[in-house]
Amino acid sequence: MSGRTNGYARGRARRDQIIEAATELFARTGYRTATILEIADHAGISRTGLLHHFASKELLLEAVLAKRDLDNDARFVTTDEPLSGVRRLVDLAEHNATVPHIVGLFAVLSAESGDPGHPAHAYFVQRYQRTYDSFAASLQRVQEAGLLAPDVDVDHAARALIALMDGLQVQWLLQPDAIDMAADLRAEIQRLLLVPLDD
Amino acid sequence: MSGRTNGYARGRARRDQIIEAATELFARTGYRTATILEIADHAGISRTGLLHHFASKELLLEAVLAKRDLDNDARFVTTDEPLSGVRRLVDLAEHNATVPHIVGLFAVLSAESGDPGHPAHAYFVQRYQRTYDSFAASLQRVQEAGLLAPDVDVDHAARALIALMDGLQVQWLLQPDAIDMAADLRAEIQRLLLVPLDD
Repeated sequence: MSGRTNGYARGRARRDQIIEAATELFARTGYRTATILEIADHAGISRTGLLHHFASKELLLEAVLAKRDLDNDARFVTTDEPLSGVRRLVDLAEHNATVPHIVGLFAVLSAESGDPGHPAHAYFVQRYQRTYDSFAASLQRVQEAGLLAPDVDVDHAARALIALMDGLQVQWLLQPDAIDMAADLRAEIQRLLLVPLDD
Repeated sequence: MSGRTNGYARGRARRDQIIEAATELFARTGYRTATILEIADHAGISRTGLLHHFASKELLLEAVLAKRDLDNDARFVTTDEPLSGVRRLVDLAEHNATVPHIVGLFAVLSAESGDPGHPAHAYFVQRYQRTYDSFAASLQRVQEAGLLAPDVDVDHAARALIALMDGLQVQWLLQPDAIDMAADLRAEIQRLLLVPLDD
């Protein structure tokens, strides 16, 4: 490995370290309250060192959000099998139950960003559009395979499943031992299907 | 009216005015970011004047939350008719679409208060328990009247309906023109019933 490559690798590791620290602090104290200095402290670098990698808190927030999307895209892959898309949602809910601080961060940010002046507003508007498209496509494939209950409207069901996942997260964050997000989501998806969701 | 009664009435009007201002500011900038001084400015009184009525931001927050619950309890009354309870939920969703800053406040606060250190944590844990009890009781009455679809589990459906309402609020806050919360909720409740929801 050349010295230059080593430099890139170090820079990348440092960026990841900052993103990790920012994710934790945004989740714990909220995006608006967390300061660049606190995040730098938490990442174990100087304020100047952090600003070298991320020139503003807004840019750091974008990196935090993009990292989560990339991680989930890599983790949950859909196959050609008609139920693969809806099964993936239950897998995602199961995974979410292992990362409360990420779930908490997204719950707070998505609610805060209803304000058009919030720096993540455009991101969340686009993210919900993408999520809707993906859920609707998954349900469409179930329908085309003849496995969707006849009274199900794909457009409504896509919005309702997204809302169910988001809403269960709020209940789960408040009472983690009382709520099983994946079980409630699985039950709801099963009601949409003519066949068992699980093999 | 005696001078003393006038004093009470004035004090109460002043309290309501402060609660109104706090509700707006908490919704706009978040509970954690809003300061007592900003709220006092917004209510048109001095910081000392505000602190005479509410000794801390936590006590003011409690008053904001209690006010909303009282308002909704007064607005939405359930009758003996078996479908009255579930119809009330659709009425509530319709009403919520007229008060975006209140909906935004509750969305942010309920998400933030997943943190056990948040001043509204205990309130929201209790509030979700009360809401669950109320939804489950409404569904139970539908079931006892023989009007609930046979595959519906009351316990699961109560949690899922609360989650649906919360989740739709987040989507609606981001895209108010694209989401009809009451229509999606009505469609979901209708799927639970053996009879038409509306008369």
